[in-house]
Amino acid sequence: MNHAIILISCPDQRGITAAVTGFIYEHNGNIVHADQHIDNQSNKFFMRIEWELDGFKIAQDEIKKTFSAIAERFRMDWNLYFTQQKKNVAVFVSKPLHCLQDILLRFEQGQFACNICLIVSNHEDARPMAERAGIPFYYFPISSENKAEQESKQLQLLRENAVDLIVLARYHQILSRSFVDAYPQRIINIHHSFLPAFQGRDPYDQAFRQGVKIIGATSHFVVEALDAGPIIEQDTVRVSHRDTTDDFKSKGQDLEKAVLSKTLRWALDNKILSYECKTVVFD
Amino acid sequence: MNHAIILISCPDQRGITAAVTGFIYEHNGNIVHADQHIDNQSNKFFMRIEWELDGFKIAQDEIKKTFSAIAERFRMDWNLYFTQQKKNVAVFVSKPLHCLQDILLRFEQGQFACNICLIVSNHEDARPMAERAGIPFYYFPISSENKAEQESKQLQLLRENAVDLIVLARYHQILSRSFVDAYPQRIINIHHSFLPAFQGRDPYDQAFRQGVKIIGATSHFVVEALDAGPIIEQDTVRVSHRDTTDDFKSKGQDLEKAVLSKTLRWALDNKILSYECKTVVFD
Amino acid sequence: MNHAIILISCPDQRGITAAVTGFIYEHNGNIVHADQHIDNQSNKFFMRIEWELDGFKIAQDEIKKTFSAIAERFRMDWNLYFTQQKKNVAVFVSKPLHCLQDILLRFEQGQFACNICLIVSNHEDARPMAERAGIPFYYFPISSENKAEQESKQLQLLRENAVDLIVLARYHQILSRSFVDAYPQRIINIHHSFLPAFQGRDPYDQAFRQGVKIIGATSHFVVEALDAGPIIEQDTVRVSHRDTTDDFKSKGQDLEKAVLSKTLRWALDNKILSYECKTVVFD
Amino acid sequence: MNHAIILISCPDQRGITAAVTGFIYEHNGNIVHADQHIDNQSNKFFMRIEWELDGFKIAQDEIKKTFSAIAERFRMDWNLYFTQQKKNVAVFVSKPLHCLQDILLRFEQGQFACNICLIVSNHEDARPMAERAGIPFYYFPISSENKAEQESKQLQLLRENAVDLIVLARYHQILSRSFVDAYPQRIINIHHSFLPAFQGRDPYDQAFRQGVKIIGATSHFVVEALDAGPIIEQDTVRVSHRDTTDDFKSKGQDLEKAVLSKTLRWALDNKILSYECKTVVFD
Repeated sequence: MNHAIILISCPDQRGITAAVTGFIYEHNGNIVHADQHIDNQSNKFFMRIEWELDGFKIAQDEIKKTFSAIAERFRMDWNLYFTQQKKNVAVFVSKPLHCLQDILLRFEQGQFACNICLIVSNHEDARPMAERAGIPFYYFPISSENKAEQESKQLQLLRENAVDLIVLARYHQILSRSFVDAYPQRIINIHHSFLPAFQGRDPYDQAFRQGVKIIGATSHFVVEALDAGPIIEQDTVRVSHRDTTDDFKSKGQDLEKAVLSKTLRWALDNKILSYECKTVVFD
Repeated sequence: MNHAIILISCPDQRGITAAVTGFIYEHNGNIVHADQHIDNQSNKFFMRIEWELDGFKIAQDEIKKTFSAIAERFRMDWNLYFTQQKKNVAVFVSKPLHCLQDILLRFEQGQFACNICLIVSNHEDARPMAERAGIPFYYFPISSENKAEQESKQLQLLRENAVDLIVLARYHQILSRSFVDAYPQRIINIHHSFLPAFQGRDPYDQAFRQGVKIIGATSHFVVEALDAGPIIEQDTVRVSHRDTTDDFKSKGQDLEKAVLSKTLRWALDNKILSYECKTVVFD
Repeated sequence: MNHAIILISCPDQRGITAAVTGFIYEHNGNIVHADQHIDNQSNKFFMRIEWELDGFKIAQDEIKKTFSAIAERFRMDWNLYFTQQKKNVAVFVSKPLHCLQDILLRFEQGQFACNICLIVSNHEDARPMAERAGIPFYYFPISSENKAEQESKQLQLLRENAVDLIVLARYHQILSRSFVDAYPQRIINIHHSFLPAFQGRDPYDQAFRQGVKIIGATSHFVVEALDAGPIIEQDTVRVSHRDTTDDFKSKGQDLEKAVLSKTLRWALDNKILSYECKTVVFD
Repeated sequence: MNHAIILISCPDQRGITAAVTGFIYEHNGNIVHADQHIDNQSNKFFMRIEWELDGFKIAQDEIKKTFSAIAERFRMDWNLYFTQQKKNVAVFVSKPLHCLQDILLRFEQGQFACNICLIVSNHEDARPMAERAGIPFYYFPISSENKAEQESKQLQLLRENAVDLIVLARYHQILSRSFVDAYPQRIINIHHSFLPAFQGRDPYDQAFRQGVKIIGATSHFVVEALDAGPIIEQDTVRVSHRDTTDDFKSKGQDLEKAVLSKTLRWALDNKILSYECKTVVFD
């Protein structure tokens, strides 16, 4: 069954929900999910609404145009999605492969409604895993000299594949501003710490030296500043003096996988809205 | 500021949200919270909607009548609340006083928007705590002989105080069917286990003997069957072989307090809907 | 580096620790881990001690005999292990393969110091996964008629492979008493509920119908009674009215994997002692 | 029943456990708890051992001298405690009173085996609570001018009361180096964030602005640098876009209370050892 989903951000004001739900009802749509949130501090309104297209009286390719009148009236930032239009996803990865492996497994099990159309790496390590999964693998070794050039080739590749969403599944290269700007709110990163603690390199070693009693993992949208984009999801696990750095890594990797797969599912289901440096997740 | 809240359960069908939000918008209401849920298995629709009465064009005491037309059209079970009408709460307690104490502390700190109008017990232990808090205390010793008589006196007292909500904060008496029927979905109990495990007496001892590695606490609406009403909230905490039954009790009591206070806040904010043996909590 | 590990259970009495650590020191052993626990209710003493064999003055194959004098003096139940003697593990599985898959992945990543020498199933589903991992797969279809016969063939196979530990990674057959008795405290099961709640079939469906707000997974030693052996580990995850039974299953399967892999690691590291219906885990 | 407890830190070497447990056994002591830990990276050995004095053949006031020979042999940092010698505790607090209140409640319920001999504040807010509990209250208003003078009066007061342990239960003054040096590893602070994230002022506001999905609380020993001493315990709780800063505070305060009371219990039971910037907690 095909559903339409609209994601909305706009200044809060009277009548938004009535207008949106009225629009759907008037054209015989059946709402299956509706979530809204008002941030009183910024006076912003957020909404995710999903309805069945079966019986809906506006043709799928006319919905955008028809809804525009409402969107303009309320000065909405908005996007329209259809559940039958699967997103094209590219996974970027460096040497640690546990997150990629977890994504591929869940993908095989049908947990992710998307096309994983390419795997990109600055190392060769992931190639066998990609080949086993039957997904094209692209190797882009990165040095300070060739970085700009390689990124522009990567962007070319992403465009050719009409990629909608980029997942950095432990990709240890900082993306340039122009790369990030090409995919705003469409690049997801997993960082192996409880951000904002332990940004940058080797967060498990940092955490171990600090003697923390809990470690974490954080998924976020990528912005230009390192490990600083809007946080989407976090989770934590208890450690003790008995745990070595290897134990930190092993416990942490399980967290990373869980947080990243949850985030990817939300992204594919169009459940994440970001504003300022924050996110609203309609879980 | 006074807000109106409507809680709705009804068969799912097209147009409910449009009708409800249209009603509010048409009379110049400003929605501040809206949550809805559709249970596809039972084809039921649930909604909680809250709007500001400031500027609303229907007088507060006319809203019920005016909304009835919509309610009838969709065959709604529904209730209307106003945030300025604080609920009258009765707390029932036996010998362990930690939950009562926690409720009174949070009440003093302004966490509960209600009137705690009486404390009822089958023992004298809670009297000093009640007196310190300045809340009337009623002692109803219960035996198998006098139970029916005492319950009818309790019901009389509850009616005289126009009690809206009864909190069993570790009250170790089974309420009769007629008592429960007088306050449907309006009696909350805290049970000191992760239900449905360890119903009945001494759940911490049961858990200890069983050698579980996690213990829990559960809040639920009271129905006639013991510890079997719709679950509202649960939480768990880790235990180990190092923990004695006293440790189980001490860790568990902290859980009980946390779960019960969360539940009471939800109940006072009209965030809980129950159906069949389940609850929808619009957290 | 080879280490020796002794696991001890005995009546509590003065001098046990002094005797055991004195024995190791006297023969020039270097203790790397020592844990002990006294259960005051049953007056039982438990110990796990691990020391380096490098420089130890008793030959490896003489340790058992030499230590026996101490063991007899304190009436110990005890076992001696060497970290270089990897356990032989058999995995039993039925149709759901997520636990098997997780075990094989972690095994490949070097998280389990053991030999997985065979995979047994009452269905053919796991065969490809076993073959990909290069582990012998044995198919034993089970009916009420052939059960005794099949079990005796399985036991034969286990003996031939000198299996030390059996992991039921979602094996949906009840083992007979004689089977269980052949591997006391050496068969680990994962049950997909927070035991003792929801024993038996379809625990996620049971949990869903019950309307719980938290689900769990439990690992335990297998005894004759179904889902009733000593609990080794449990974990829980929050669910809400928004979760369907499929969501329960998906969240629960991640728990199952985490709990079972933790338990297997403990078992391989000889960190679990069981007594009565409980376990001591020297984590 | 009186127990002796020895806490030990020393370079790791053969024979420590054998020597310590041999000493206790030789003089007819009955060990009730023994925990040890070896940090392989720093090659340090840590031990906590507790034994019954009933029947022990060395007089209580001779134990220290007698054990010294062993301590010197292994170059131990060590301390001897007796469970019947309750620690004298001073609680420092500023305006938020929830942690103080929680400590006093648990103290009344018998959860803390100590004497709370004084409550110190730079504000008058806690006076009524102190008086209700019958604990002397001392008001030391602090300004940049009088800080050194007030601290020296506080130290005088602490000495007069033979205070063993200082609990900063949300005391919003930075202690000077000389103050901290007078009570090394004997001043416990609760910080209302998941350290090292959000040090300093208003961590809940910082966390809110950052858009984190989990908040935390951290207890630590106080050193001269702000919020930087060895971490003893941490805990976290989930927040969402629906939570306001007030919700962050309310959820966080429950964490603070839980973490601080756990830490205080461990400190009173002599279960915490600190080294470098870390702690070993023999929980």
